[in-house]
Amino acid sequence: MLRADCDVIVKSAIRRVQPGSAVQRALSGRNFNTGRIILVSVGKAGWSMAKAALECLPRRPDAGIVITKYDHSGGALDGVEIWEAGHPVPDENSFAAARRALELTDALRAEDTVIFLLSGGGSALFEQPLVAEDELKDITGQLLASGADIVEMNTIRKRLSGVKGGRFAQHCAPAKVVSVVLSDIIGDPLDMIASGPAYPDGSTCEEALSIAKKYGLRLSEKAWELLGEETPRELNNVETMITGSVRELCSAAAEACRELGYEPIMLSDCLTCQAKEAGSFLASVARSHQDTEKSLAFLAGGETVVYLTGHGKGGRNQELALSAAEGIAGLKETAVLSVGSDGTDGPTDAAGGFVTGETRSHLEQKGIRIHDILQDNDAYRALEACGGLIVTGATGTNVNDIAVVLIRR
Amino acid sequence: MLRADCDVIVKSAIRRVQPGSAVQRALSGRNFNTGRIILVSVGKAGWSMAKAALECLPRRPDAGIVITKYDHSGGALDGVEIWEAGHPVPDENSFAAARRALELTDALRAEDTVIFLLSGGGSALFEQPLVAEDELKDITGQLLASGADIVEMNTIRKRLSGVKGGRFAQHCAPAKVVSVVLSDIIGDPLDMIASGPAYPDGSTCEEALSIAKKYGLRLSEKAWELLGEETPRELNNVETMITGSVRELCSAAAEACRELGYEPIMLSDCLTCQAKEAGSFLASVARSHQDTEKSLAFLAGGETVVYLTGHGKGGRNQELALSAAEGIAGLKETAVLSVGSDGTDGPTDAAGGFVTGETRSHLEQKGIRIHDILQDNDAYRALEACGGLIVTGATGTNVNDIAVVLIRR
Repeated sequence: MLRADCDVIVKSAIRRVQPGSAVQRALSGRNFNTGRIILVSVGKAGWSMAKAALECLPRRPDAGIVITKYDHSGGALDGVEIWEAGHPVPDENSFAAARRALELTDALRAEDTVIFLLSGGGSALFEQPLVAEDELKDITGQLLASGADIVEMNTIRKRLSGVKGGRFAQHCAPAKVVSVVLSDIIGDPLDMIASGPAYPDGSTCEEALSIAKKYGLRLSEKAWELLGEETPRELNNVETMITGSVRELCSAAAEACRELGYEPIMLSDCLTCQAKEAGSFLASVARSHQDTEKSLAFLAGGETVVYLTGHGKGGRNQELALSAAEGIAGLKETAVLSVGSDGTDGPTDAAGGFVTGETRSHLEQKGIRIHDILQDNDAYRALEACGGLIVTGATGTNVNDIAVVLIRR
Repeated sequence: MLRADCDVIVKSAIRRVQPGSAVQRALSGRNFNTGRIILVSVGKAGWSMAKAALECLPRRPDAGIVITKYDHSGGALDGVEIWEAGHPVPDENSFAAARRALELTDALRAEDTVIFLLSGGGSALFEQPLVAEDELKDITGQLLASGADIVEMNTIRKRLSGVKGGRFAQHCAPAKVVSVVLSDIIGDPLDMIASGPAYPDGSTCEEALSIAKKYGLRLSEKAWELLGEETPRELNNVETMITGSVRELCSAAAEACRELGYEPIMLSDCLTCQAKEAGSFLASVARSHQDTEKSLAFLAGGETVVYLTGHGKGGRNQELALSAAEGIAGLKETAVLSVGSDGTDGPTDAAGGFVTGETRSHLEQKGIRIHDILQDNDAYRALEACGGLIVTGATGTNVNDIAVVLIRR
């Protein structure tokens, strides 16, 4: 019963964050200006986002381009150029594809619309360096070696790019940019996702120059000049919709819980703590609510971390679930599930794990001690032994993870 | 404003779990049988629990005894013998005091009542060994060396004791035992608190003998005989009330939150995960609920743990709060507090810590990086620097900790 509920919840939640359905929810029934429509779809989910957009747009775009990772295209799309490029390291195709996208969106008028679909990986796939490629690599290397943090890195790199930090949207102006973002970063920081080609940049030249000085960067005259040029702090031609994020994964899961008769309680959509500690925390939530009269579901989305101490096989979701099994041991009609929306949890063929109040004693009967398994990061083996693996196969999306505590009454 | 709320919440919650007020809530307005009333108060809070009972009982007990730790008595109590004994290692006084308590409760009738007040430390303070003291010490040593777990240890030790594992209540029968337990163990396992003198024992002789064989214990003939004697599996003369537990700490804090205008949401009353991970989890809960229209308070009680990696000064509550400060950085009108009910968090003079969305930037201005401080387990220094220590002084109670997320709207 609990396992059947688990499978329904996982399936519903992942279905809702498919790039295609997320794009369709964002664009369906929408009217556009009377001018031209240009479709630009960038990122690892670029192809399926573009395909979904074509299906729900009121008319065929006047031009279109997909820029995605090698082997991530699903075939020809009517009237749309398909480019594949390097990821995670940008290559010549990334630069050529970006040039082509800038061409297609050149000299637009106010009545035109750019439909800009963005997913993870866009930072590498879509790039127009304003300095020589070799210098860009050298500067990145200097920043990494200096210990600069990600915010400092981005402050510098956005100024060396013709498309990052809002500059792509600036290039499209005065045309309207309708930006649909499939977020794969906790908290949806729009300036970080693909380095924010259509999002205003909060950093200043002053900051960029002081970072360069702080770390003693060796830069060409051209690069110094670029650090002195502001990125757009405001973009009044852009409308941004975040879709298919972990937030949506959580709310889809909550809805599925409600339909199954649980009262959903959302704890978090930005979990980032250690996987096994999150499992312990969620188990204590389960244990504290055993006297409930109605069925409850506590939901926590995000992306936990694992510090490897052993050599076993597992992933953060399996580890979270197995750790929770210790904490909920002995509880009646209580389960914890944790699953990655991409269907691949760690280097395994499972998407996550499912445990109940009986899991610990089942494992003990097989001579498996949870504590030892967690020490060895070997959750896959334990969950496999007790039928606790959740296997979905590759799902075609990637918007972090969700964990759910189920208490059935 | 948030800090003032914090101080009110901490004060109200701790007041509610004072041994005295907890006992009075449990006993006030209660009627007793017409027979004799014998008061037996055992544990570190034994004196203040007895004092409170005397104030609210309908009549003076016919006899009474307090058995507490050295220097834990507050002075003479009318008609009550005061004994002080060894803790954490039982001593001759522990045995003599237990003998005296057994005398006072000897040959009672069905219309008599034993008021049995129990707090932490009772296991050592109140003991009647059924084997020679030296053998008891030797067996405990053998069990520790063998790697036996706490359940196995207790299964053996309860059978070697005349008062543990429900045997004290059995001795009082047919008199009624009204047992008021101040719980200092997460989850209130009544068979564990002071080894459960008035609580039925779930273990069997068969289990005890198989543990003795498993670890090859060397035992006297007398001890083997005792392992073959059942402890009471049922006690129909006992009524147990748990009071002043972490659960009560939580509900008092929740009530205080409600009075201050927050809607309280209880997450857990049995948290046992790592302190800094709990801080991260709670911060993510705070961050996920920023769009709330009403003020919210999320509460989590329990006792987190700290794995020492550094040499700084701090405690689990300070570490939880400081870790949360990283996660809530930048959030408006949001705070996290964590406090130990005994007023002593780790080896410091603080009871816990309080942080807000501004704490991280305050610390940065002083050149203090939270990550480094946590690595060095040095939370006290950081919280001291930003006015984030919560100092209550010794509170006279000890029912674990409480952490609260406050979102003011």
